[in-house]
Amino acid sequence: MSNNAQTQAQEPQILKVEEYKTDAKWLKLENIRWKDQEGKERNWEVANRTKRPKAGVDSVHILALLHHPSKPVSTIIIEQYRPPAGVTVIELPAGLIDEGEDAATTALRELHEETGYGSGKAGEGNASVKEVSDILVKDPGMSGANMHLVSVDVKLGEDDPEPEQKLEPGEHIIKRVVALKDLHSTLKDYSKKGFAIDALVASIAQGWELSKQFV
Amino acid sequence: MSNNAQTQAQEPQILKVEEYKTDAKWLKLENIRWKDQEGKERNWEVANRTKRPKAGVDSVHILALLHHPSKPVSTIIIEQYRPPAGVTVIELPAGLIDEGEDAATTALRELHEETGYGSGKAGEGNASVKEVSDILVKDPGMSGANMHLVSVDVKLGEDDPEPEQKLEPGEHIIKRVVALKDLHSTLKDYSKKGFAIDALVASIAQGWELSKQFV
Repeated sequence: MSNNAQTQAQEPQILKVEEYKTDAKWLKLENIRWKDQEGKERNWEVANRTKRPKAGVDSVHILALLHHPSKPVSTIIIEQYRPPAGVTVIELPAGLIDEGEDAATTALRELHEETGYGSGKAGEGNASVKEVSDILVKDPGMSGANMHLVSVDVKLGEDDPEPEQKLEPGEHIIKRVVALKDLHSTLKDYSKKGFAIDALVASIAQGWELSKQFV
Repeated sequence: MSNNAQTQAQEPQILKVEEYKTDAKWLKLENIRWKDQEGKERNWEVANRTKRPKAGVDSVHILALLHHPSKPVSTIIIEQYRPPAGVTVIELPAGLIDEGEDAATTALRELHEETGYGSGKAGEGNASVKEVSDILVKDPGMSGANMHLVSVDVKLGEDDPEPEQKLEPGEHIIKRVVALKDLHSTLKDYSKKGFAIDALVASIAQGWELSKQFV
């Protein structure tokens, strides 16, 4: 009888989080002591950034939508060497949210820095935030990392020149404008050449292809 | 002159990876000593799983495509409490690749366990692997975690009953079949109710909506 009672579902609950001590500066490992749906106490290990803005979200990824009078709607992808992957990765422009920033502000700032589009500020230039996604988790079996996907409209004139990036010293980012209709095949080509592809941009391309196939 | 030479781009290179010692069992933190594009030596911290199959890829996420004679093409999402997020997360079915398994085998096995669809084995039942994506990285600024997105076709008959999950003791996973056309709005509803959304499934839904809007 008591066994039956124990196996009835209840809300899982985090009991205690203990950090493993290391000399690492940017990342930490923690052990989560939690009570599962059957009331059983269990452990789960998690990696987290040591610093997170008070608002509770780590980063934004930027889905730029370039609207040009005579070209198909395009987005911007970047090539960036990532030591954790040991290889150059194809990603959306992205960045960590600074303390006190909201996601829209981070998105406009990072888009301007990494690609040159917009002015970096709301209400200026040709870029405006279209939508900030709900909070998304990036790898919830392993880390607490979370993010917003921010869609940004960029209105271009017929002969607008490609803007220059505003990279900081030590930043090495190559940008590329790709028509959304070509995103899936472009990522395939990068992969063949030995680049790694970020799961987020690959999934957007996959969703586009699914819609083309099944709508 | 030598300064100019130093700032010319060269291939970044990983020089040394050192593990921070902890008592954690499943995860580890490492410091990567690397040489950047200007030849400057730098450090980067990374979280990794302690165990990875020899083939070098951690996990699969499963994009099930349910083909029913009289219903729109649908996929399967799951609700699963994730201690690293401290909340129930809406994700695609997924799992770690066992040693010696290929991604397609893992996908069919996990789909069967978590949703009941297919038989769990290639060449049996109503599920077949349509496509295994290139290797995708999940959070390449912070971890080495990588994956394949595996598309699986499931052919259903008009009156096929909803199959039962084959969950292991201690696994608490709720599955839900969702028409691809309703995926985006379904995720929005979950988010409003306090669930977290995995970035991968959200991005697939976003790609679908983009295609509907701009194709």
